[in-house]
Amino acid sequence: MNISIHRPTFVTHLECSMTEERYEADRLHGLSRAGRPLLVRYDLAAAGAAVARDAIEARPTDLWRWRELLPVRHTASIVSLGEIETPLIPIPHSAGGNVLVKDEGRLPTGSFKARGLVMAVAMARELGVTRIAMPTNGNAGAALAAYASRCGIETIVFCPEDTPEINVREIAMQGARVWRVNGLIDDCGAIVGRGAAEGRWFDFSTLKEPYRIEGKKTMGLELAAQLGWELPDAIFYPTGGGTGLIGMWKAFDELEALGWIGPKRPRMYAVQASGCAPIVRAFEAGEEHAERWEDAHTVAAGIRVPRAVGDFLILRAVRQSGGKALGVGDPAILKAVDDCARRDGLLLCPEGGATLAAYREALRTGEVDAEERVVLFNCATGLKYPMPAAPNTLDRHAPIDFDAL
Amino acid sequence: MNISIHRPTFVTHLECSMTEERYEADRLHGLSRAGRPLLVRYDLAAAGAAVARDAIEARPTDLWRWRELLPVRHTASIVSLGEIETPLIPIPHSAGGNVLVKDEGRLPTGSFKARGLVMAVAMARELGVTRIAMPTNGNAGAALAAYASRCGIETIVFCPEDTPEINVREIAMQGARVWRVNGLIDDCGAIVGRGAAEGRWFDFSTLKEPYRIEGKKTMGLELAAQLGWELPDAIFYPTGGGTGLIGMWKAFDELEALGWIGPKRPRMYAVQASGCAPIVRAFEAGEEHAERWEDAHTVAAGIRVPRAVGDFLILRAVRQSGGKALGVGDPAILKAVDDCARRDGLLLCPEGGATLAAYREALRTGEVDAEERVVLFNCATGLKYPMPAAPNTLDRHAPIDFDAL
Repeated sequence: MNISIHRPTFVTHLECSMTEERYEADRLHGLSRAGRPLLVRYDLAAAGAAVARDAIEARPTDLWRWRELLPVRHTASIVSLGEIETPLIPIPHSAGGNVLVKDEGRLPTGSFKARGLVMAVAMARELGVTRIAMPTNGNAGAALAAYASRCGIETIVFCPEDTPEINVREIAMQGARVWRVNGLIDDCGAIVGRGAAEGRWFDFSTLKEPYRIEGKKTMGLELAAQLGWELPDAIFYPTGGGTGLIGMWKAFDELEALGWIGPKRPRMYAVQASGCAPIVRAFEAGEEHAERWEDAHTVAAGIRVPRAVGDFLILRAVRQSGGKALGVGDPAILKAVDDCARRDGLLLCPEGGATLAAYREALRTGEVDAEERVVLFNCATGLKYPMPAAPNTLDRHAPIDFDAL
Repeated sequence: MNISIHRPTFVTHLECSMTEERYEADRLHGLSRAGRPLLVRYDLAAAGAAVARDAIEARPTDLWRWRELLPVRHTASIVSLGEIETPLIPIPHSAGGNVLVKDEGRLPTGSFKARGLVMAVAMARELGVTRIAMPTNGNAGAALAAYASRCGIETIVFCPEDTPEINVREIAMQGARVWRVNGLIDDCGAIVGRGAAEGRWFDFSTLKEPYRIEGKKTMGLELAAQLGWELPDAIFYPTGGGTGLIGMWKAFDELEALGWIGPKRPRMYAVQASGCAPIVRAFEAGEEHAERWEDAHTVAAGIRVPRAVGDFLILRAVRQSGGKALGVGDPAILKAVDDCARRDGLLLCPEGGATLAAYREALRTGEVDAEERVVLFNCATGLKYPMPAAPNTLDRHAPIDFDAL
């Protein structure tokens, strides 16, 4: 990666995702006055004149190759931990020959949250933020802690009390102050909101600052470049807050505006756990917004998000794409994780397992067919999650029955 | 990655690392008749005529860009899980401005063992092996399980009884049969050796088959390419079996024979834990071989290797390079891991922490100076290792004292 060169941004302004009201760039923003996420807008004509698709391809493959489509104005603001392009891995035995897993577990701190947070922290630094708070189910907090600690920004993180131990410890190891809260992620978000309203810190909740989505959209940019500027037929995306799905959908529009891809879009499948499926319920009911899901529970903690501030953006993208919102049960998730590890040697996180489970079900119902090119997102390394015990022991001092091994 | 093209190999033969006796390529081999590791030799003149340095640079950056310097004859033998080029990450706050960490935790199964095993499994498959056994401290077993399961090779893995739980579970999840043994890695190796002698399986112990070293040498090839074909002044490498150190040293010679680098070599520092430091003891005593270390103990389980079959190759490379073998204590290792996570946002594994601890000590004694370009190897993701508890809790129903957060 070469981040030492000057990197102009082509940002023109920010825009309310609901009302299209304009907001000035280079200022600190949270939600819009309508209480909705802000989207970053670029002068894409100028960006396209400044850089060609071929020039992008000639650059090192990390996230910063997309700099003309990213909001960071000063190279010195970037706090990098090596945001590599994540590989696409076939899983022929557990899914079929046309399915690729985009393995986001290879990013810093082991999850796709690094994409959003590397961007949001760079912008926070650029705009003078010195104290950040965030609610998290684990991985976002770890990414925030890593990037913020690296540049001396103070961080306070709140997570549900049953967040996996490894996530909480990782956040603390990486220099954040972390608190377990007796509630779910939106309960944690309420605490962050109160502190932000009192001016104690800047609120880094999903979609409540405008730049995480710009980092996450690089998943869509990368996918286009990796697949020869031909998007897949379908994308299965584990959907909690939905930043990545919204971001990819935005990225595809930007790529088409640049003339780098055509009008073809993948069908976007928003995958949720059936124990916490507000987007699925709203999709099926034909609603534009999703009500809070009560009594949320699933082994896939990362998508245990009862209420998403970007609900309408997720639903809009899914519908425009001709995709669906799909719910899968915990047994199917665990079975998918197990099959993929055992037969394809790839250890998915439960949320990644959910996409495989949803793909299998979609194949069974004819929603997708086996000939279609499909990408599943594995959003984190499977190593962060509980695995079944392996209890076999052998006494080296006793006679060994080799036939029984 | 494009692995669908035909990939000729330039292997001419194998050679005993002690006696230089020649062995035929394309046959299954263990140790040489002298009981020493075999090294793979190439027709480097022909390889250099077939591919230029610029052509390598134009290829995708994964491990397979180096195919002319690798032993795999048939593309179809390759079982890939996305062997990306690992990033070099500065750690200015915990080490200084000229130190880069090569973060091998980004590889499949989260460790540098993937490099060796992707190569060894491909060659085993090419040569018709159907059953493999291995002793492991954890990470090698996980990599073997993943690649072998993916191509239907049966695997049996033996690990010391106190191997971290996550490693044992990961190995089992990825389809291997795994046994905890009341002993250390060489005790496990003795069991594998007995089964191999009875023809029950092929022995995949470190350096007992010739191809893991060829995979590991790609660390040296990558480093050269990433640093503009100018090797660093010093490399700190966590040394158990030493395959990577031996492999890099071999890679540098091959690169020089190709004319792609000059004669400059880094000083190679073999880093061990002071609770298991057979190479350090042999280095300091001026010995060519290292005696078994009794009562081995260290938090850095991956380098708890009491006896290395390639001991003389490690010692030879270290001495030729003008480097040293260095021992560091567990407190310094844990302190280094903590500092690097807290101040630079990079969570090292304990073995990676050992290299940082050794670098700091070397800086203190004047063995290296702060102006020198240094590379530390973080051989696995820090997420596989125990972290201190983070016990803070907050009751969302009670009044929150924001000033105390």
